[in-house]
Formats: sequence, structure tokens, C-alpha cells
Amino acid sequence: MVNAVELRQSLSPVRGGLARVSELLAGALGSDVSPLAEASAHLTLLSGKMIRPALCLLSAGAAGGDVSAESLLLLAAALELLHTATLIHDDIIDGSALRRGRPTVNARWGDRAALLAGDFVFAKAFRLVCAAGDGRLTADLASVVAGMCEGEAIQMQTSPAHRDEATYLDIIRRKTAGLMSACCRCGAVLVHGSAEDAAALSRFGLAFGLAYQITDDNLDLAGDSAALGKPVASDVASGAPSLALFHLAASPGAPPDPSALPSGQLLDLLRSAGSLDYATRAARRHADDAKAALELLSPSRYREALSALADFGCCRDR
Amino acid sequence: MVNAVELRQSLSPVRGGLARVSELLAGALGSDVSPLAEASAHLTLLSGKMIRPALCLLSAGAAGGDVSAESLLLLAAALELLHTATLIHDDIIDGSALRRGRPTVNARWGDRAALLAGDFVFAKAFRLVCAAGDGRLTADLASVVAGMCEGEAIQMQTSPAHRDEATYLDIIRRKTAGLMSACCRCGAVLVHGSAEDAAALSRFGLAFGLAYQITDDNLDLAGDSAALGKPVASDVASGAPSLALFHLAASPGAPPDPSALPSGQLLDLLRSAGSLDYATRAARRHADDAKAALELLSPSRYREALSALADFGCCRDR
Repeated sequence: MVNAVELRQSLSPVRGGLARVSELLAGALGSDVSPLAEASAHLTLLSGKMIRPALCLLSAGAAGGDVSAESLLLLAAALELLHTATLIHDDIIDGSALRRGRPTVNARWGDRAALLAGDFVFAKAFRLVCAAGDGRLTADLASVVAGMCEGEAIQMQTSPAHRDEATYLDIIRRKTAGLMSACCRCGAVLVHGSAEDAAALSRFGLAFGLAYQITDDNLDLAGDSAALGKPVASDVASGAPSLALFHLAASPGAPPDPSALPSGQLLDLLRSAGSLDYATRAARRHADDAKAALELLSPSRYREALSALADFGCCRDR
Repeated sequence: MVNAVELRQSLSPVRGGLARVSELLAGALGSDVSPLAEASAHLTLLSGKMIRPALCLLSAGAAGGDVSAESLLLLAAALELLHTATLIHDDIIDGSALRRGRPTVNARWGDRAALLAGDFVFAKAFRLVCAAGDGRLTADLASVVAGMCEGEAIQMQTSPAHRDEATYLDIIRRKTAGLMSACCRCGAVLVHGSAEDAAALSRFGLAFGLAYQITDDNLDLAGDSAALGKPVASDVASGAPSLALFHLAASPGAPPDPSALPSGQLLDLLRSAGSLDYATRAARRHADDAKAALELLSPSRYREALSALADFGCCRDR
């Protein structure tokens, strides 16, 4: 179990790099056109957890590379921008009004401006990937983004009542875990890590991403709204699934549509049916898979930091 | 003045290449996820004019390159996909229901699916650019796409009543002409044309794009709805500007809001005020600028075909 202080400590091997990534992000979205730059910078400049850049830098280090190389920092910034672009479009699709405690781009500037802002950030992200200077990565990431669209499409076309646990895992594998896996793989590839190390880190990122998203969805149900920066159970209200809800639906005596219940009543049911614990255990298993993938790498403080991040992935409170 | 038969003849030097580009397009959007692949293929597989791939292939030929090289054909297909992705998102923003005589993706699958389909096609387009194998082009095109978003943002934030001719030209320069210029430039760069040839072709594409879009907007006002595949003046109804409307608004005795008039009455006014002729002359001037840029290139049948295309750009009827 880690807390926020321990998380910050685990990132210490790349703290300088992450600070430089923040600078690159602030400079990447320059535009002479209003409100595009403001709208796209709005989300980018909110202090996210920077998990994706951290995965990229730590993986590069774990693969034996220089974590302060400018090309690597450009790649890490590009990965955060790709994530930001998908958030902007996901918030339109889900009709979300709040993220990280601030209005979403669609809530503040409208759906049409948010659509354009997401496209703009996508383009700027690919521009940064190119600046990192390794054409293989651009191709890899373009395929990953196509896969993320597919994950979102599966989520969109399958109504919550007709989704099952396997479909849920397929969605989060393509959406969240696909990009996180790419963050680790591309970091290793850019610094010319061995193919074996890049493959191990790719597996780490996939398992880490599953643990991370399962935990995220659990927090939406049971977390603290102030810590989350958005209303509890807001994803349930918008039709997003979670592992705990699938467990509850399969439990004896479950109501036909648990997501329609008031959030307090739903939480009581999830607790008494053991559904939150079920999801927590699943996240723990994926985090353990992630840590097992790391064993193929040479020991280093970067490898240790990734291991600590995996614990964070399934034990965080926000 | 050229007609459709003459256009087809002007494309004969790259006819084989364009057929192969069509095959590449049909294969580029593979997905195991419904309705994403159907929705994105819907527009791609409608027979567009393939102007952008044609510009790319002809420019490569005019710069002395092999117009049947597989890498060039991949690039040409990627350029058509980039265009397709922007059409999918533009149709959401404009609320358009018809394009090329068929329902738009948003009309048939809804705005949310269309948003995702556009992102999916963007990602696949960048994947194809990477497959063409020249990293400089990916960076160039990412910047061009960011510029297209800026053009659309300027259009969105400036109400039609507050736009002027300079703003209109700025919008179409960033949106239409920016990509067409890139089609020409990237074709020349990929086949290792000289820097002078690439710059001349880039200028050709920019001037061609301005002539093309001014003509397109004129056709929306005065063209034949069956030939266009969409209702006459549908862009006016959605708030899109055109050079003829700016001319009319500045004419003595013009009504305060011409775009609110029934389309027949508007057309009569545009004709009597000489506004359609004004826009046609402007398109002709840009087409002549485009042809002048070609004079720096060595004579070839590709250069002649580009010159014929420039005539098409300001004299087509659909």
C-alpha cells in the first residue's frame, strides 16, 4: 500500500525529467487562434498525475537509457498530449462536465470547440512524437490511437446492461492499458533498449494499465469526491461500467438495474455483496502480473520505481 | 475551361497510381469493431474526386520522381484519409446531413460515433504516412492538420456577419489550401525532388487550393444540386461564408442579411450585383498564380497535367 508521499518518492529518479516535460507541454500548444489554444491548454496545464510520462521515462531508465535525453522528454510530453486529446473527446462523448475538479473543455467552450481542440492536441502530439526523431514510434502510436478509438467504440455500441466482464476488460485493455503499454515500450525503444526489455516493459504497461483502470472505476464508485475532483459515481450515471458493478449484477438478490440507485444505496449494496473487494483483488492480480514482468529486467532504481508505481496503480485513493 | 472528360484526360499520367491508391484506401481502415470501420469507410469509399492524391502523384512526377513508387502511393492514400477525417469532423461541426449525395457519418451513425470515426481515420492516416517511410513528412503533415483545426476554429468563432474577405481567405488558406499545398510539397519531397521544385509545388498547391475553395463556395450558391450531391446554398444556411456573399454585402442596396433570403432570390441578387462573377474572377487569378508557380519546373507531362488541374480548380461545375 502506498500513499501520495510514497508515490512522489517513487518518481524521484525522473523528477527532473518530469519537470522538463511540464515545460515542453506548456510550450507545445502555441497558437495564434483563440479559443483553440486556451481550450486545449486548459486541460493540459491542469496538474494531472503525469503517469504516462513517468512510465515512459522510468521504462527508458529501466532499459538502460539516459532518462534526461531531450528526445525522450519530447516523447514523454507527446504521450501526455495524446492522453489529453483522448480525454477532451471522451468528455464530449460522455457529456462530462467536470474533470480534475475543473470544467471540461466541452462544458466551458461547447462540444464543437472541444471537438476541434481535441483534434488540435492530437496533431500537436504527433508533431512532438516526430520531434523525438524515431519514425518507428510514430507508427506504433498511430496504431495505438486507432485501438483506443476501437475501445471507445465498443463501449459506445454496447449498452451497459449488455456488457459483461470480458467486454469490459477488452474495452479498458484497448483504451487505457494500450496507451500505457505503449508509453513503456516506446520509452525503451527510443533509448535503444534490447527487444527483450522493450517486450517486458510493454507487458508491464499493459498489466499496469488494467490495474490502474479497474482501480479508477472502483474509485468512481467508492472514492472521495473532493479527492477525485468530480462527483462520486458520475461514470456510473453516464453508463460507464466497472468490475464491481458486474460482480454485483451477478450476485444473488441484486436489483435489476443497480446503476439507477442513489449513490449511497448503491455503495451499501456493493460493499455488502463484496463487489468492491472483488474489483480490488482483480486490480491487485494485474499489478502483480505487472511486477512479475519487471523481473526480466536488470535491477535498477528505475525498475524499483516502476514496481512501486504498480502498487500505486491498485492502491491509490484518487 | 475544362469539363469532366478533359479532367480525366489530364489525370492520365497518374491513372494507374490513382487506381492503386483506391485499393490502399479500401484496405487501410480494417477494424474488428463495428460500426467504426463501416462508418469511416462509408465516406472513404464513396468516389470522391481524389484531387489530393492526384496533386501528390503529379507533383512527384513534376519533380522528376517515379510516380508508381509504393511509398508515394501510400503517402497519396494517407493524404486522402487525412482529408476524409477532417470532412467527418467538419460535418459534425456544421450539422451537415448530406455529402457527395450520401448521408454524412453523423447523419447515419450519430455525432458521437462520427467523432470517433474521424479520430480513427486520423490515426490510420498517420499510420499510412509512417508507412511511406519519410519522418519529415509526418512532422510536416501534423503541423498542417493543426493549421486546419485553426482555420476551422477561426470560422467557428467569427459569426458570418462579422467575417470579412480577409478573414475568409485566412480560413480557406489554413483549411483547404494548406492541405493541398502539403500534398504537392510532400509528393516532391518524398521522391527527393530539389528544394526549389518542392517550394514551387508548395506555392502551386496553395494558390490552387484557394482557387478550388472559392469555386467550391461559388458552386454551393449557384451550382446544380444534383451534380453537387447536396442542396444548393446548404453551406450558406449553415453559416459558411463565400467570396460572392462578401461582395454582395458591400454592394449598394444589399439587404442586411442576404443569407436569410430564399435561395432563388439570393441567386438573382448575386447575379445582378455581379457577385458570382467577382468570385469567379478571384478564383481565376489564384489559378493563374498557381500556373505561374509551375514555370520554375522542367517541362513534363506531369507539369502540364497540374496546369490543366489549375484550370479545373476554377472552372468545374461540381
